[in-house]
Amino acid sequence: MEYTIKAIGLVHSCYREKFGIPRQPGLVKSGTGAIELLAPCDREEMFTELDTFSHIWLQFMFHEAIADGWRPTVRPPWLGGQKRVGLFASRTPHRPNFLGLSVVRYHGLRKEKGGLFLDISELDLLHGTPIVDIKPYVPYSDALEDATSGFVQFAKQKMAVQFSSEAEASCKRYQQEKNRNLKSLITEVLEQDPRPASQRGLQREYGMLLWDVNVRWMAEEKGFTVFLVIPIE
Amino acid sequence: MEYTIKAIGLVHSCYREKFGIPRQPGLVKSGTGAIELLAPCDREEMFTELDTFSHIWLQFMFHEAIADGWRPTVRPPWLGGQKRVGLFASRTPHRPNFLGLSVVRYHGLRKEKGGLFLDISELDLLHGTPIVDIKPYVPYSDALEDATSGFVQFAKQKMAVQFSSEAEASCKRYQQEKNRNLKSLITEVLEQDPRPASQRGLQREYGMLLWDVNVRWMAEEKGFTVFLVIPIE
Repeated sequence: MEYTIKAIGLVHSCYREKFGIPRQPGLVKSGTGAIELLAPCDREEMFTELDTFSHIWLQFMFHEAIADGWRPTVRPPWLGGQKRVGLFASRTPHRPNFLGLSVVRYHGLRKEKGGLFLDISELDLLHGTPIVDIKPYVPYSDALEDATSGFVQFAKQKMAVQFSSEAEASCKRYQQEKNRNLKSLITEVLEQDPRPASQRGLQREYGMLLWDVNVRWMAEEKGFTVFLVIPIE
Repeated sequence: MEYTIKAIGLVHSCYREKFGIPRQPGLVKSGTGAIELLAPCDREEMFTELDTFSHIWLQFMFHEAIADGWRPTVRPPWLGGQKRVGLFASRTPHRPNFLGLSVVRYHGLRKEKGGLFLDISELDLLHGTPIVDIKPYVPYSDALEDATSGFVQFAKQKMAVQFSSEAEASCKRYQQEKNRNLKSLITEVLEQDPRPASQRGLQREYGMLLWDVNVRWMAEEKGFTVFLVIPIE
């Protein structure tokens, strides 16, 4: 049984590469983006009353994972990359149908240059992600009070993050020019420690693309220091 | 952008036709079923550690809605069928990609006749539904405490349900033969009032298929009476 599905929208996201994307939605409150709706789903009436919901489910394609294929078991980051679990016991992007599922905060519809956009935040989605469905988050049926999950433990301590005076000044300029709180975004992303489990403990330099800047930061024993924020466009 | 997706499993469900299916999962605790896994996803190792979760997300195809197509706005049953909302503000089966999303309780893996099955309950899925992905329900990211939904109100009163002595005896026999609590299933399904909003208030007879029986019941002013339970196989 095969089915053909089409993108109904495309994600515009602050996350411009895989590295740095939070491991789940909701973790980085300053992460923002929008969904650009594609015909025939770019009609306003298709979203009537969606603004009575605070959150929406997005079903999407892990489009950048498709070329890599999938394996029956994976090493989820929750377990420090040490233990293998079945792929269906994880939310890995490398899945048989490469379908993703994510809940994000919904901020409303916006028309711009003849296009229709859904503004969202707290997302964990790569720029360019194809959206294949949008549904309201219904607390009555989705927020299960009695659900349990054994091996997923998120009570991780946040990393300490500091900025050089140069990086701080760059963020301030960026905010004035683009009206985006880049410093909060960088801080919240780094607090979650975006490094692969295998690189924890190493002291080295990293780069990470957020919006249209390259963020250069250093992993040290006590935490992370952002030392440079460079425009890339 | 088009993508081809394949069924990874097929639902075996107590719900043998659309009429009678609860309007969301979790409402009918006695609703049970299984997912028969299809190659190449019928390997036990792909589900290792899934039993540490109490619930799973199913992404599936609304396969019986495809032939009907979709419309930009719908009349959700929450509003008594009176008001139109955008299709993306609803969970209607009639959607551009006919993708469904449902959380069900997970009871474990079972091997039977060389096949691999996932036992589930509290489902709202039609028999024969193609499953396209399975993911663990992670309370930390899925159970949003601060989510709000304006127009969805579920605090509906349950319908009163009674059985004729003949129907009661049929349920007892069925339980002895098949080890399924048919009476509880029928009661919980009818308590939710499966009738379309347009038929509320009418006093008439209904039939409904559950497992391999035809349930005949009467809608009266004070509630529903099940008067006959007839095997159909």
